[in-house]
Amino acid sequence: MTKWLLPREKVLRDPVHNYIHIRNQIILELIDTPEFQRLRRIKQLGTASFTFPGAEHTRFTHSLGVYEITRQICDNFVTNYPSRNHGQDGLWDDNERLVALCAALLHDVGHGAYSHTFEHIFHTNHEAITQQIITDPHTNINRILRQVASDFPQKVASVINHTYPNKQVIQIISSQIDADRMDYLLRDAYNTGTNYGLFDLTRILRVMRPYANGIAFNANGMHAVEDYIISRFQMYQQVYFHPVSRGMEAILTHLLQRAQYLYHHCGFQQQPTLLIPFFEGNFTLTDYLKLDDNVLNSYFVIWQNHPDKILRDLAQRFLNRQPLKSVRFTQYTQKLIPHLQALICQAGWDADYYTAINTSYDLPYDTYNPNNTKAQIEIMLPDETLEELSAVSELVAAISNKKIGDQRFFFPKAMLGRHLTPDDPHYALTQTFRKYLLNDALIDPKII
Amino acid sequence: MTKWLLPREKVLRDPVHNYIHIRNQIILELIDTPEFQRLRRIKQLGTASFTFPGAEHTRFTHSLGVYEITRQICDNFVTNYPSRNHGQDGLWDDNERLVALCAALLHDVGHGAYSHTFEHIFHTNHEAITQQIITDPHTNINRILRQVASDFPQKVASVINHTYPNKQVIQIISSQIDADRMDYLLRDAYNTGTNYGLFDLTRILRVMRPYANGIAFNANGMHAVEDYIISRFQMYQQVYFHPVSRGMEAILTHLLQRAQYLYHHCGFQQQPTLLIPFFEGNFTLTDYLKLDDNVLNSYFVIWQNHPDKILRDLAQRFLNRQPLKSVRFTQYTQKLIPHLQALICQAGWDADYYTAINTSYDLPYDTYNPNNTKAQIEIMLPDETLEELSAVSELVAAISNKKIGDQRFFFPKAMLGRHLTPDDPHYALTQTFRKYLLNDALIDPKII
Amino acid sequence: MTKWLLPREKVLRDPVHNYIHIRNQIILELIDTPEFQRLRRIKQLGTASFTFPGAEHTRFTHSLGVYEITRQICDNFVTNYPSRNHGQDGLWDDNERLVALCAALLHDVGHGAYSHTFEHIFHTNHEAITQQIITDPHTNINRILRQVASDFPQKVASVINHTYPNKQVIQIISSQIDADRMDYLLRDAYNTGTNYGLFDLTRILRVMRPYANGIAFNANGMHAVEDYIISRFQMYQQVYFHPVSRGMEAILTHLLQRAQYLYHHCGFQQQPTLLIPFFEGNFTLTDYLKLDDNVLNSYFVIWQNHPDKILRDLAQRFLNRQPLKSVRFTQYTQKLIPHLQALICQAGWDADYYTAINTSYDLPYDTYNPNNTKAQIEIMLPDETLEELSAVSELVAAISNKKIGDQRFFFPKAMLGRHLTPDDPHYALTQTFRKYLLNDALIDPKII
Amino acid sequence: MTKWLLPREKVLRDPVHNYIHIRNQIILELIDTPEFQRLRRIKQLGTASFTFPGAEHTRFTHSLGVYEITRQICDNFVTNYPSRNHGQDGLWDDNERLVALCAALLHDVGHGAYSHTFEHIFHTNHEAITQQIITDPHTNINRILRQVASDFPQKVASVINHTYPNKQVIQIISSQIDADRMDYLLRDAYNTGTNYGLFDLTRILRVMRPYANGIAFNANGMHAVEDYIISRFQMYQQVYFHPVSRGMEAILTHLLQRAQYLYHHCGFQQQPTLLIPFFEGNFTLTDYLKLDDNVLNSYFVIWQNHPDKILRDLAQRFLNRQPLKSVRFTQYTQKLIPHLQALICQAGWDADYYTAINTSYDLPYDTYNPNNTKAQIEIMLPDETLEELSAVSELVAAISNKKIGDQRFFFPKAMLGRHLTPDDPHYALTQTFRKYLLNDALIDPKII
Repeated sequence: MTKWLLPREKVLRDPVHNYIHIRNQIILELIDTPEFQRLRRIKQLGTASFTFPGAEHTRFTHSLGVYEITRQICDNFVTNYPSRNHGQDGLWDDNERLVALCAALLHDVGHGAYSHTFEHIFHTNHEAITQQIITDPHTNINRILRQVASDFPQKVASVINHTYPNKQVIQIISSQIDADRMDYLLRDAYNTGTNYGLFDLTRILRVMRPYANGIAFNANGMHAVEDYIISRFQMYQQVYFHPVSRGMEAILTHLLQRAQYLYHHCGFQQQPTLLIPFFEGNFTLTDYLKLDDNVLNSYFVIWQNHPDKILRDLAQRFLNRQPLKSVRFTQYTQKLIPHLQALICQAGWDADYYTAINTSYDLPYDTYNPNNTKAQIEIMLPDETLEELSAVSELVAAISNKKIGDQRFFFPKAMLGRHLTPDDPHYALTQTFRKYLLNDALIDPKII
Repeated sequence: MTKWLLPREKVLRDPVHNYIHIRNQIILELIDTPEFQRLRRIKQLGTASFTFPGAEHTRFTHSLGVYEITRQICDNFVTNYPSRNHGQDGLWDDNERLVALCAALLHDVGHGAYSHTFEHIFHTNHEAITQQIITDPHTNINRILRQVASDFPQKVASVINHTYPNKQVIQIISSQIDADRMDYLLRDAYNTGTNYGLFDLTRILRVMRPYANGIAFNANGMHAVEDYIISRFQMYQQVYFHPVSRGMEAILTHLLQRAQYLYHHCGFQQQPTLLIPFFEGNFTLTDYLKLDDNVLNSYFVIWQNHPDKILRDLAQRFLNRQPLKSVRFTQYTQKLIPHLQALICQAGWDADYYTAINTSYDLPYDTYNPNNTKAQIEIMLPDETLEELSAVSELVAAISNKKIGDQRFFFPKAMLGRHLTPDDPHYALTQTFRKYLLNDALIDPKII
Repeated sequence: MTKWLLPREKVLRDPVHNYIHIRNQIILELIDTPEFQRLRRIKQLGTASFTFPGAEHTRFTHSLGVYEITRQICDNFVTNYPSRNHGQDGLWDDNERLVALCAALLHDVGHGAYSHTFEHIFHTNHEAITQQIITDPHTNINRILRQVASDFPQKVASVINHTYPNKQVIQIISSQIDADRMDYLLRDAYNTGTNYGLFDLTRILRVMRPYANGIAFNANGMHAVEDYIISRFQMYQQVYFHPVSRGMEAILTHLLQRAQYLYHHCGFQQQPTLLIPFFEGNFTLTDYLKLDDNVLNSYFVIWQNHPDKILRDLAQRFLNRQPLKSVRFTQYTQKLIPHLQALICQAGWDADYYTAINTSYDLPYDTYNPNNTKAQIEIMLPDETLEELSAVSELVAAISNKKIGDQRFFFPKAMLGRHLTPDDPHYALTQTFRKYLLNDALIDPKII
Repeated sequence: MTKWLLPREKVLRDPVHNYIHIRNQIILELIDTPEFQRLRRIKQLGTASFTFPGAEHTRFTHSLGVYEITRQICDNFVTNYPSRNHGQDGLWDDNERLVALCAALLHDVGHGAYSHTFEHIFHTNHEAITQQIITDPHTNINRILRQVASDFPQKVASVINHTYPNKQVIQIISSQIDADRMDYLLRDAYNTGTNYGLFDLTRILRVMRPYANGIAFNANGMHAVEDYIISRFQMYQQVYFHPVSRGMEAILTHLLQRAQYLYHHCGFQQQPTLLIPFFEGNFTLTDYLKLDDNVLNSYFVIWQNHPDKILRDLAQRFLNRQPLKSVRFTQYTQKLIPHLQALICQAGWDADYYTAINTSYDLPYDTYNPNNTKAQIEIMLPDETLEELSAVSELVAAISNKKIGDQRFFFPKAMLGRHLTPDDPHYALTQTFRKYLLNDALIDPKII
């Protein structure tokens, strides 16, 4: 791949990796495409910046970071392990570098504005769109990738969808300890200002190694890998599943749903042109690529003055950070939710738009199961046999195969009736509402 | 001001200061206003994220940071210096705390989308609007401030416009070493990933002290203050005046100018409703508060497909990061610019939209001059006499009263004629263009 | 205690806490005593700097750090919780501050040179000596403490030995999450350059709170406490129990034992004067206070040229970092050790001085047991009830009450016979030795 | 040099560089020599830890750090610049790597205990001894270096004494911006907890480049180099020349002088055996290598009980941190010193042992002068011409060729007469002493 080498390495400053190093013309051209630059306008963590104000970073910087970690992995492999070009015993073929780098850079290119929420409502699929952006002959990204070879776009896409023949490359980009996860943990920790996500990246990269069928970690680095798993566990508990961010997501969901409803039933005076293909369930790639956080937010700015009371109110709540409150519920307390909803209706709220249930669970580490496309983590012992991570780490074993997360019921803050006096018409109703929350132990440990 | 104390201190996570501590109900309510939440959608450094990708932070987090530094300053003053309430010899009156905190939080609340560029074209003024947001009886911010006292909004505004009687409070918020500058240097360094902006905030806060007529720094902390001045000098040179960010600003300026031109001469099929009051030079505060980076960017997304070739091209260049290139010029080489512009016209570019001149200068440290509203820095010697900083620091003296910065001429990258072959129609023209740049030493040290 | 307040707070720079803040004359005088200054000459981690070269920090800086954390805890308590002076409902009595600060500063003052090794051989006891230094009327420390009150030394000592009536004070200084442990984890991580020991001290101090009978942690900070427990677990596994440091400890143990043997059986040409009271098992506090790492090391420098071959060799090995190698053994492989020892003897080594068994175990977190003097960690729920930490944290539950560590057998590196050729007289013997190690799976995962 | 390659790279943890990477058997063996391990027992900053408690790091870790930076420089050169082996236009010959690495590792190996003080009194010379350790055929270091080639020790020595033919290698190890200075600034900043010494090492290494006759820095990295010079300037002012450390050095000097005097005039009951060769001015390399901080400190521990009052007192002052106080003087106030000394004598102090004059100056950056063995810093412009740093940096120009530092007069703290009452016999005398200090403006800005 030397033909694409730049005359001089270029670097981009990055607060997490210090510098992003680029030696390949193809990478530079991919970064300069409109499809990739668009990621500058999509926040990495969606509504989390409403909880952690510093979390303003985007999928653009994250994608560069995943590229950089992949580059460092390849550098390590080519320096320290025998080349597959030079004999049958080789462990790493550096001709795989370019496909790995491109897949790393582009793995999230199909993400859209507030992806998780948006996909749920409009049935888009960022993974499918990532594939499409890479393989559709009309995109800039496809055009650049085709310079390498006519089947190169397909190769890059196959790494991302796990069908590429070389499992090493797949595992670098997508496994339970891949360049993607390592970058987002470090970057999210850096920008939120929490330190749960910190782990020793240098050490992990040092002990990461290719073997015949994949990637393993030398046993003397087991504890660094263990620490990474714990970090991920803690980031899910402390950051990714934070109830306030989810309370804002609930607002966002209902806001988009209300807009779609109005589009179909009343129309808009000033049409949200770029959203219409999605309201109608009939969108092209070009339509999709026009959406980003900025476009959605600017509609919300306009909708703050919309005549529909619910749309207007939800838009204001989203822009001005007024999350729904929530309580955790369990299988035993789930039966109370209809009662709560009834009270909320009695208080004059439209329960469709002002209540929600959100279930957030993650498996921090998953030993082998046949449906999991993410490879388990293998530790290579000094005799070159492999052991699955949870077999050698008590800490990891303790959290393996256990889902973490919770189910929460979301409702308007006003239902708590704080500051209401007994002569307020809703006083009795909010008292009943609070009694359900407290006496029936719906909540643990508190209302957020 | 104990009546506004929260039952329990609240904290927000912040990557720069670790936590933002809030004890006052008024502060919490100010943060929750739409006027303040809007700062979440305005980047602190405008186009700098095109040069330093990590610079995605907003005026929202910066404003919280200025508040937090001010809070720490007040805590230090009240703990370590005699209170003015308790006698004639007091140095600090903690009744000033709330006005200082509010002014710190709100000092930038009138900033708009891409302020510097926008103001230049549409004759808005973020400082005047900050005053207006605080003092206009119809804003949420004014309403909350009035809870303290009917003249409290005016007091807060007067701190920001330097007319408040207590010079100590003014200097905390606005001087050559104020909470504003200290926060932005640290925050911009953190997010760009450069370390030029780092200095010892803890030490500076420790040696900062009130005296009768203002704020001074104990002599044993002189070097920490010196280090802050050097950091600021280096951030201007390395980050704030970076030619690539200015090349993107040039694009943005011309893009907005073209849109205004089209509005007056051709109209838009889909009207950029929120910009029209500005195109017409007749806007209200309500109009102003609807604008943010997101709104502008979403118009640019739409304009990428506009029939006007120039608007379309500039919108694409801005969204996809294709800055104008530039060269530095001096009083001796300035006369070449018309020749360069002529060549650019010959190559088919509209020079009004594809060339620009940008002059960026800053005074890193200014000893007294009668027009400067920013107080000079005073060092307090052990005998309690004051010395101006540059009198005791050779390093600061070396850069005092010297403007740093440069003047640059901006032009399309294509004018460099890279990759053109001699049979290209523009070949000769680009050769001449390059000859001007190189032979006449217009440039130093290189084209950026 | 205002009578001891310094006219101005003094600060010491510290890389871990940034500054150590001192407002009390008593603290300053305690730091200046010979007994406390002596801690500058005793490394915090003993032989660990042979594994982690940066671990050169001493008990002096650690003791200052424990003081500083305690000071921050008291500041938090007095600011945020009702005072016991002002009514029956008070939670914290700030008159306890001085006793807490003194106990924090002095808790390790009885540590000696290479304490753990030295105590084992010479039957000294650093805890008893800490008590003695504080309560013996002839020490400088006692004289300074007596300025406060005649019974004040006894009070300080009683905090350290857990008999002080106020359990809050004891728990600040000595519990499963005390100022001591928090400082050493952060400081050891900082100096070794590992990041296992990092956790969010600011957050923990924020959620730490007094209650009637002790110290608890607010439930919203549970995860920060959990993270601290995991950090401690990892530091034990990765740093404190590192086999190379233990291989150097084995050398040190045998070196001191040999010196004692020679003293009793042969004498020294140049007497190790300061060690003689310990060789004879009859030492005074004055004798003890003369010993530090420097004194021991300087004897080792002299012993490098001693006529006794074993003493000379062990001194050289210790000074020049030639640890014994080791293998982990289990109850199943323990029976092989006599065979290994026999081979070592056959190869000409004195097994008393060139082999060792070391067992290192720690309980990373201990739910209640009646013999544990270290209080368990209590989480305070929003309704002010308490839950023990492992009841609310799955991660902590996973490692509670489980001892971590291992047993290792130590032997000379030469027994591995690396680089020996078959004609070497020890060749066969070392082959047998290696066979035991490898075939019998004595080792896991490798010889260190 | 591939014959010395280890089968697998070894790493040492280091808090400053994260890891020290070792690929060469020779380097590993050099580290394991007694001569090099001895550096573990010599503090890098001598008495500075009395001012900055964290400064407990040794010449051992610093030497490893200089090695590591040199390794990174060579890696950069071999990756990014044409090899001299491959043609006449090559810029870097990687056969120089091993001599550079060895010189980096060993450049300080001749340093002794409290070098600067010790050398001054006993006329030892650490640079000459470094040469001797490398070239004397009886040292372990020489034996290991000879494995490479019989003239290899001499080559390594010639790099350190600036006579090696390849100026590039000399400049890596010893110039105004060399691996030595870069490591000590970062390491001293890390351990003292100050941040004056921080600069962007990654960036400097990236722009550092070989040219025909030496080392230069690409112009686009000029500001990182500038920042390094400023950092060095600030470390000298704030850390290295701190008056308290110099007050402890004065104690140490007099303590050793007194011991030498006593040796010649009275003898010692218990001889300080290892110091005698130095007292007698007749020492061998073997004698020298037995000294380290530990050995000196352990004599001081013994001397605390010596019958000679001055020796005993100075030993106690040194071990227990009781520095001489000091004032700055100038050419105008120098004439007062005899008066001060007379008063000190009248108060009963032996002025030879209780006063001192210390002059500490450094040139933070030196443009060319014919006597300077340290090369000036060259900036390489895009057209490959060179400019000396101060010609392109106003900040550096401001401090070039200007010595910084001061002259101070040291005296016993008791001379300040604090807490004396008028009826004290020394009251009048101390009043006169203070009057000199204050009225004659001897001091600026304060007595330290």
